Amino acid sequence: MKYYAIIVAGGSGSRMNSQIPKQFLLLNGKPVLMHTIEAFHFSDIKPKIILVLNAEFHLLWKELCDLHNFTIPCTIVNNGTERFHSVKNGLGLADDHSVIAVHDAVRPVVSNELITRSFYLADHCGAVIPVVTSKDSVRLKEGNDSITLNREDVVLVQTPQVFKAELLKNAYNQKYSKEFTDDASVVEKAGHHITLTQGDYKNIKITYSEDLELAALYLEKAKKNPANGPD
Amino acid sequence: MKYYAIIVAGGSGSRMNSQIPKQFLLLNGKPVLMHTIEAFHFSDIKPKIILVLNAEFHLLWKELCDLHNFTIPCTIVNNGTERFHSVKNGLGLADDHSVIAVHDAVRPVVSNELITRSFYLADHCGAVIPVVTSKDSVRLKEGNDSITLNREDVVLVQTPQVFKAELLKNAYNQKYSKEFTDDASVVEKAGHHITLTQGDYKNIKITYSEDLELAALYLEKAKKNPANGPD
Repeated sequence: MKYYAIIVAGGSGSRMNSQIPKQFLLLNGKPVLMHTIEAFHFSDIKPKIILVLNAEFHLLWKELCDLHNFTIPCTIVNNGTERFHSVKNGLGLADDHSVIAVHDAVRPVVSNELITRSFYLADHCGAVIPVVTSKDSVRLKEGNDSITLNREDVVLVQTPQVFKAELLKNAYNQKYSKEFTDDASVVEKAGHHITLTQGDYKNIKITYSEDLELAALYLEKAKKNPANGPD
Repeated sequence: MKYYAIIVAGGSGSRMNSQIPKQFLLLNGKPVLMHTIEAFHFSDIKPKIILVLNAEFHLLWKELCDLHNFTIPCTIVNNGTERFHSVKNGLGLADDHSVIAVHDAVRPVVSNELITRSFYLADHCGAVIPVVTSKDSVRLKEGNDSITLNREDVVLVQTPQVFKAELLKNAYNQKYSKEFTDDASVVEKAGHHITLTQGDYKNIKITYSEDLELAALYLEKAKKNPANGPD
């Protein structure tokens, strides 16, 4: 079976008050994105890496790779106007008979255990996403009001979201819709059932500057205990 | 105006593989609960502290206070079978004409800014809870299936949840229901509108062992920059 990981690095960094997109920020002295790619490359699955990157950053990425002696082979493809189009661009480079993970470039702490389990499950079930339950109560806004949701029924969705290639490509042939906030929502809209698997609280998305320090902490711990899995 | 903070320390610590409840775990060399109480005591609001504590831990708490020279006055009251009953026990000690915050003992990184704003808003609006939007996509489980929610409509609820005393006491006169997962859900059930205010991603709930290190990081940063508010 062929395995691919499409790493989506489309962010603009606007939320972190920095001009440099979050995937290029330094984490333990190395850009976040390199940690993310390494997590997949050195996993048991060893998928081929397809990196979706804004055209204006291709040169910067090349320079960073030279600077950090980063030699993991990545096929680079331009991003699109929306995340949907970015993933679609990446999909064009993956074989039809394969299993494909789509992963946020800014989730560098993803574990080998989660990657491997998600690929194997997807090969069996077709569409798999890692989820964790919320530690906080959850409310749903409705107009000017909001209602309490049953916390046990609510899950927070992470990546990698992993799919059989045929299924994912077929889903991405749909016309773009604003509802498509992640790959699961695209695949779901195409009529496929999504299988939920246990995510990992440590698999954080680098969104705010504090997240970088937390990620550094988690990576440090993972190094001391390479068999780290979800809690 | 009289101000109270009911600090609810009911947890059993079972999720952290430790026998000692999470509020007693050491954070920068001091029990989590002491950081939480200090956050309120040294805030601009300076509320009276009502500490809800399992009877079996009263002696331990006294010993910890002696050990750490912790002298902030707290009125201690026994917890109940559910969080609902614990808060109700605490409410019995607060004046009718007051504003009351209910806060998780295991959220030690709450900022003065959030405490002060929540109290002032509650005095004006009646019922205020701090919320943050989810960084992750959110799905709602429905039987064996699950559906994508519009992420912008979903908020994660933190504490302090702050209320006018009459309103909160009135709501807690209702019969206990399993739906009551937090104070807002109790007050809402009594027919009151809940006002949402911006929470703080740093105001984390100590749930897993990693959270302690993150909390230590945040406290360290807050010390360097005492005017820290939400992002």
